[in-house]
Parts: sequence; structure tokens; C-alpha cells
Amino acid sequence: MGLKINSDLGTFFEARNVAAIGSFKEEWMGGYGVVKNLLNFGFSGNIYPINPSYSEVLGMTVYPTVNHVTDAIDLAIVITPSQVVPTIIEQCAQKGIKAAIIVSDGFAETGREGARLQQQVVDIAQDAGIRLIGPNTIGIVNTASGLVTTPYFTGYNRIQRGTIAYASQTGITGAQALPLEDCAYPINKICDFGNKCDVNEIDLLEYLAVDPTTKVIAMHLEDIKDGQQFVDIARRVVAHKPVLILKPGRSEASAKAVASHTGSLAGSDQIYDSAFRQAGIVRLDTWQEFLDIPRVFASQPLPAGNRIAIVTLSGAAGIMAIDAAVQSRLTIAQLSSVTMDRLARVSPRLASNPVDAGQVAPFVSDFTQTLESIVATVLADDGVDCAMMILWAAFTSEAREMTDVFRRLKQQFSKPMTVWIYGPKLSAKEELSRELEALGLPAYLNLETAAKALGVAASYAKVRLHLKDAEALSQS
Amino acid sequence: MGLKINSDLGTFFEARNVAAIGSFKEEWMGGYGVVKNLLNFGFSGNIYPINPSYSEVLGMTVYPTVNHVTDAIDLAIVITPSQVVPTIIEQCAQKGIKAAIIVSDGFAETGREGARLQQQVVDIAQDAGIRLIGPNTIGIVNTASGLVTTPYFTGYNRIQRGTIAYASQTGITGAQALPLEDCAYPINKICDFGNKCDVNEIDLLEYLAVDPTTKVIAMHLEDIKDGQQFVDIARRVVAHKPVLILKPGRSEASAKAVASHTGSLAGSDQIYDSAFRQAGIVRLDTWQEFLDIPRVFASQPLPAGNRIAIVTLSGAAGIMAIDAAVQSRLTIAQLSSVTMDRLARVSPRLASNPVDAGQVAPFVSDFTQTLESIVATVLADDGVDCAMMILWAAFTSEAREMTDVFRRLKQQFSKPMTVWIYGPKLSAKEELSRELEALGLPAYLNLETAAKALGVAASYAKVRLHLKDAEALSQS
Repeated sequence: MGLKINSDLGTFFEARNVAAIGSFKEEWMGGYGVVKNLLNFGFSGNIYPINPSYSEVLGMTVYPTVNHVTDAIDLAIVITPSQVVPTIIEQCAQKGIKAAIIVSDGFAETGREGARLQQQVVDIAQDAGIRLIGPNTIGIVNTASGLVTTPYFTGYNRIQRGTIAYASQTGITGAQALPLEDCAYPINKICDFGNKCDVNEIDLLEYLAVDPTTKVIAMHLEDIKDGQQFVDIARRVVAHKPVLILKPGRSEASAKAVASHTGSLAGSDQIYDSAFRQAGIVRLDTWQEFLDIPRVFASQPLPAGNRIAIVTLSGAAGIMAIDAAVQSRLTIAQLSSVTMDRLARVSPRLASNPVDAGQVAPFVSDFTQTLESIVATVLADDGVDCAMMILWAAFTSEAREMTDVFRRLKQQFSKPMTVWIYGPKLSAKEELSRELEALGLPAYLNLETAAKALGVAASYAKVRLHLKDAEALSQS
Repeated sequence: MGLKINSDLGTFFEARNVAAIGSFKEEWMGGYGVVKNLLNFGFSGNIYPINPSYSEVLGMTVYPTVNHVTDAIDLAIVITPSQVVPTIIEQCAQKGIKAAIIVSDGFAETGREGARLQQQVVDIAQDAGIRLIGPNTIGIVNTASGLVTTPYFTGYNRIQRGTIAYASQTGITGAQALPLEDCAYPINKICDFGNKCDVNEIDLLEYLAVDPTTKVIAMHLEDIKDGQQFVDIARRVVAHKPVLILKPGRSEASAKAVASHTGSLAGSDQIYDSAFRQAGIVRLDTWQEFLDIPRVFASQPLPAGNRIAIVTLSGAAGIMAIDAAVQSRLTIAQLSSVTMDRLARVSPRLASNPVDAGQVAPFVSDFTQTLESIVATVLADDGVDCAMMILWAAFTSEAREMTDVFRRLKQQFSKPMTVWIYGPKLSAKEELSRELEALGLPAYLNLETAAKALGVAASYAKVRLHLKDAEALSQS
């Protein structure tokens, strides 16, 4: 695909020997928090706590500086006061470390003096060939190795391993900010690039583009350092995997705030909008979409077209789903006469799209089986490219039976599906949601997002075909 | 306010003696489900199960027909097969019942034959002066008396009593469809008017307009029978309480589906849009907004203007909040120099709006206290009309302390606030959310909804002033 492999970033994500440099006071902050999280998440590499004032923490030897460690160190995680960071990076240089994450804040985001300090750190690192993530970041997560660099409390120790990569200019994608255990976000890697003094969205995009375990790239960007270059690269990436971007700063007021948050300027929103469109980048509108929509790419096949079938237990929800689908540039599938006949044999009330399965619920003895045959009939229709399910969950005990239905359907059909679940018990909704997610069927919090996820998948499928054609042409 | 009091609807909502007419097979369906739910929700009136084939259900006498009951009956809940409904309504007429909810489906929504059956029922009822809700409905809820008419499983027995009235053309507002116990929707009344063979949105609007315990009216409408009359009445209601409408059927495809779901035509969406705007009706965009946004009116004072302050623990979330606020027609408040000075005394990093309190979290010993003083400083600013809080919740144990902060702030200031909570533990987020809701501070699932709720409140406050002026003028 003509993209250079950014092996520098591999040093961060695939690090085996990791130094945590900071305070080891027992609190959720500083080096202690980082080491504690690495232990909790079962990091498969080696951890080297670094601090001249301690000798032991959590049963591990603490070294005064990285240079006191005899093993080679791949990655330094720095959580010291900002003033000390230049010295720390100098020590890292002496040790021959090639990657450092500066979690500490107090740099460019605080004004001129902080910017000067940041530049000083960058200069030292550049001379030594050290790549930097941050400062002002919670760093990275790699679910494959249990690598996590946030110093803050997370309260869990298992993120579902998956194929989504989240990159952001904020810590609220991190393990300390998202209920990644409670909600199923099947994650591969996370990177908060903070102030982006060195590693930025282009490095990350290049790395993730060729990362074999990343299927979908979701980026939250407040600013883009080199818009033209970014879009050029993204365009090539999009031919192979989807790139989804949430770019706040749409209003004048937020653009100003971006400047003070990141210390850089946010260009005109309209320019981004059209550049993204040209590159085939999916632009997302809300934080919830940013978190939720990538899942459709992680677990579902791409739809062959944009014709959606809606199977619902509520007529009204079906109608709302149409609005949401049309707004997401999907077309309501015309069911074939064969499909209509088959549905009519179950009940004459079913012969339309949305298929209101709720209408027959009171009249059949085994509704789960009826629902399965309805969905199977709809998915078998050549005029249907994807399907959205609106399910009711009231009994935790029924989650397994319903999941079995979709397991069989998933084996039989390779068309993408999304799910919205309503019902009177949060516990029952969450149970069914978790079961379906585990099966690889994305369940959404909002009806509208469940439709939009399919719309985005269909749009991407179309763009991808087009870009692949263009790429083939340019190579011929 | 010149609105006639629709006392007929009081007969439904304030019913004391209620007959449940249907099957008493022990399942979540039919009369059994209705009686079981009435018992679970602690209905304070009397329940009369009606069925010729049973003599006792759930420890209560079952009567063959309503005419076998010696007491007067206020309300009949009919959950029989549709073919039987005309006979049942005739019996209700003989008994002198004045209100019936026809839960049964199989009427106009199924086609021509069903429409004929529905007309037959309407004719019988009209001759006897019986008002009808439905058919094809789950009926009503009145949290004050524990009156609930859904036959389906709910799994809980307490809806937080409040001041929101939901009216809808769907059962998915009902107790069997929403986790009303788990999520805090402080509800006064719910009405699903189903096929609207008699009671429709105009009756409901008139009733709720003068209902003293209803502070805000939220309506989900697929069609409006008499648009002009509805808008005329709504305009008068809006001068006194907010009317929020979710009207699906925006696309051609959904308008067609509405026709088949409700048996009536949906009208042009643009016409509704401008009529709603003229009447001062707030039009909502999604189902989640329909459920969530009314809460801002239930618990918060109206803002005096549209200037918002944002207090956040995440810089990036603050920026997203600006976008959401601006999109909801709010203005980012210019903090006064006094406020800026006060904030700068806590930390020079705080002197801007959004106020990023997260920046000082690592440097203060009692962050909760610092947060309280930051929020108090911001709310005291005359240039701030409302505030949005972005909070981090990770420890269930901290919910109480944080709630205490907002209890004191609520006592001190009468400016509306909304909250968005992020964090790594669903349980901690939900706990803080519940505590704040109980205090009367709406916590939202999405960052964007938390901002939009304040935007909608500010827009309504402005419209209301304008309408009150116009009303005063027309009366002088």
C-alpha cells in the first residue's frame, strides 16, 4: 500500500522492559499508580520502578535512575514534576532508551514558559534519537501485552482484546476514563498523544495502518499539524481499513479553546470537512459515536450495499429507525416477493420493512424461534445488505437463548447487523448486550447510533471500493 | 390561560375503581399481567378482575362481567381478543363506565377489517359517553396512585414520582419498556394513546396543561389529527409549561411506515417544523433526547439567559461541550474580571471558560472542596446563566461527598445545572448519577445531551417570556 512502516511506534506499543519514573507514594498518581496498573493488567513484560528516594515498591526493587538498571529498557514512562523532565530524558538518553512517554503536565498547555520547557525536552530527545509521546498524556494501552501507562485509578484489570485502535488528544479514551470492562469495547491499542511534542497523528496513522491486529482506526483530533500530509496518508490507509475521526472545534468558541488546550491552532472546520470527505475519512459527530461506532467494523463484515432491513419488536421504534437510517444515507430495503410471501406465512402483519415482529409475539408459542426464522428470511433476501435489530430484554435468564439465535444467524449469513435493546431492567439489557457483544454483534446504547453504525459501514464500503480501484489504476 | 379543563381524562388518570378485563392465565400478558402490575406498583384503588371462566386470581374474586360488580367502576382496562371488544364495551356502557383503555391490538393498524371493528367500538362508546384510550396501547401510568395498565413484565415496582408527563404513540414509553426504576425519570403520568380512536394528543395536551402536578409535557407523535388546532392550543400551553415533541416520520420512507403503523397520514415534515417553532414547541431529535431532556425542566429553574459556564475535569471534554453548547444555541459565558481573579487565586490555569478543574486536581489536598469553590465562584458570576458539570467518577464511596457539594451549591444558587459523568466503573458512574438525580440534578448519559438540555431550557425560557407578554397584551 506504499506506506512506510513506522517502527519507532512499535517500540512504544511492543515494549517488553518498561521503566516507571516518578513518585512512589501510595496513591493513584505518579509512578505508583503506573506500576499498580501494570501489575493489575497483567503486563507480560518487565517493570523497573525508578526513584532515588525509594528502595522497594509493591515488592519490586526501585532503582535510583534508569542507568542503575542493568537490563536494556525499551520504554520510559515519566510521571515526575515537569521541571525534572529534562534531566530524566537526559538520563534516558545515556541509557540508550529510544521511547519515552511523558505523562507529566505543565508544558506547552500552560503557556510560554511551559512551551520553552517542552522545547528543551524535545531538543534533548531529538539529539539522542528518543521518540516522545506527550507530554500531558495518559499514554498508551496495548491489550495484547497488558501494557497500560495511566497513573490513575481504573478499578478493573481486563480490557476485552479486539481490533479497534483509539488515538486521541485526551486522556478520556484511557483505561481510567472508560468503563472498558463493563462495556464491551474490543480494543487493540489506545494512544493519547497529549501535547504531541513529537509523536503525532501522522506517526500513529502510519503505524496503525500497517499494524496487522488493528482493523479500524478511530481518532479524536483537536488539531492536525500538517493537514495536507495527514489527508494524503489517510486516503491511502482508507483503501485498506476505515479511519473514523471526531474533530471538535467546530465553533469559533471551541476553536479558541482548542488553541489554549493544545497550544496549537485549529484550522477552519469547513476545510477539514471537505478534506476528510475527499480522503474517505468518516467524520463522527459525538463522543459517544467515537466510542461506539468503530465496533461495527471490528465485528461485522462490510455491507455489499446500503439497503437496510429493520426487525423490531416495537412499531414506533421501527419508524424512528427508518429516520435514523435515512439520515445515515441508508435505503430501506424493498423486500422481494419471495421474502414477503415467506413472512406472510408467519403472519400477514409481517410483510413489510421494518418487520414488526412484536405484532406476532402474542400469537406464537416459541417467540425466539419465530424471531429467528423472521430474521433468517430477511437476511436471505438478496435485496438486503444489512440489518438492524430492535430487541426487548426483560429477563436476564433469556439472554442466553436470544444469543443462541444470533449465533446461528451469524454462522448462516455474512451480512452486518447491529442491535438496539430496550426493556424495563437495566440488568437484563446489559446482560443481553454483553452476551451479544461477546458473540461479535454490536449492541448500541441509542437507537440512532445502531442505525448510524450501519450507515457508516455502508459509506465506507463504497469509498473503499472506489479507492481500491483508483489505487489499482495508479499502479497499473 | 383560557384552556378548557378536560375532566374526561381525569377519569382515566384519577381512577379509583379499576376493572381488568381479559385472560387470567398466569403469564405476562392479558388481564393477569395487568392485575399483577397493579399489585406490584401498590395501586391505591380497587381492582376488579373480569372474566367469565375464572373465579379467583391472585387472591381476588374474578367477576364474569363488569355488570356483576356491585361497586361503581371508573375505568375499564380491556385486554381481550379484538373480536370480543365491541361486546365488552357494550357491557361497560350498561355498567355506566365512562373510561376504557383498550390494550388489545388487531384494529385499524392491521388494515381495513380492523378499522371497521375499531369504528364499531367507537360508535358503541360514543353512544354511551365512554371515552376510549387506544386500541393497540399499553395505556397509562399515574405514579401518584400506582395506576399502571400494561399487561407486560416490568420487573420493578417503583417509579420515581416526579413532574414529567410523557405521552406517546407507542408502548416503549411504558413501564414494561423503560428501566424507570434503574434510571431516574421523575415521572408524573404516562399515556400511550395507541391508535387514538378517541382520546388524542389534543385531549391529552389540554388535560396536562392544567394538571397541577405536571411541570413539563413530552410528546412522541407519529401523526397529528388536527395540526392547526394542536398548534393553537400548544401555543397557549407553552406560555405556562414547556411542550417537547419528538415527531418521527421525517423521511418519505418513515412517513409511509407511519401510515401503516397508525392508520393515518403523517403530513409534511417541514410544515410541522415551522408550526412547532411558531408555537414555541421544542422539537427533539432522538428517542434518548425525548426521554432525557424533560428532566431539566422537572428539577432545574429556568435560566435567565443563554450564557453557559462549563466546569470540567477534562480539557478535551470541555471543548466538546463548547461545540455541543453552541449547537444548542447557548453562548459561552464571558467570565467577569472578578470571577477570573477569584479563579486565578485557586490556580492561574483556571481563569477561562470552560474551567478545567482537572488541571488543579493533582495539586490540592481536598479536591472536592476546591471543586465546590470553583463552581460557586462561577455560579456567582452575573454573566453566567447556567452551568454544565463534567465529573469523573471512579469510586462508589465518593458519590456521597460529591453529592454533598452539589446539595450546598443548589441551596446557594438558583441557576440550572446539568451533569455528564465519565469514569472507569459503570457502578461508580451509576451511583453518582443516582445520587445527583435524587438531589434534583439531572445527570446525562451523553455529554451532548447534557449541553442540549440547558440549550433547550434557555430557548424555552425566552419563548415563554415572549408568549407571556403576548398573552398579557391580548388580555389588556
